[in-house]
Amino acid sequence: MKARIVVTLKNGVLDPQGKAIEGALGHLGFDGVGSVRQGKVFDVELHGTVGETAQAQLDAMCDKLLANPVIENYTVEIA
Amino acid sequence: MKARIVVTLKNGVLDPQGKAIEGALGHLGFDGVGSVRQGKVFDVELHGTVGETAQAQLDAMCDKLLANPVIENYTVEIA
Repeated sequence: MKARIVVTLKNGVLDPQGKAIEGALGHLGFDGVGSVRQGKVFDVELHGTVGETAQAQLDAMCDKLLANPVIENYTVEIA
Repeated sequence: MKARIVVTLKNGVLDPQGKAIEGALGHLGFDGVGSVRQGKVFDVELHGTVGETAQAQLDAMCDKLLANPVIENYTVEIA
């Protein structure tokens, strides 16, 4: 079973990397770029777990390792 | 207009960071983790462009700055 976890910074948390990309896009001639925020994505393959168990396991992975719940949000999509 | 760009490594390209996460999840007691691949996500806000123009502009951003087309794939989702 495959799952995709997307980890993004919470609103209000500064994102200097996103700001740098925003500036670089402007320099490259892309007009109208309002804001850019960067996050992380994890494609995880799980064996032997399905449905709600898998969802719970993936949430636990995020809380313990993949995301920092103080400053980051995460979403889990099971494919 | 908001768009989400997801950049992932192509199949066959080594992902040491993903491998490290895989190992760390194992050490934390998560069984059945098959493979982990890490990628990047960009949430971009665009002003003044819509539809196909926006799609073309976002593709150009990926080709020029956000992704390395030699080793990475990208998908653009317009919200």
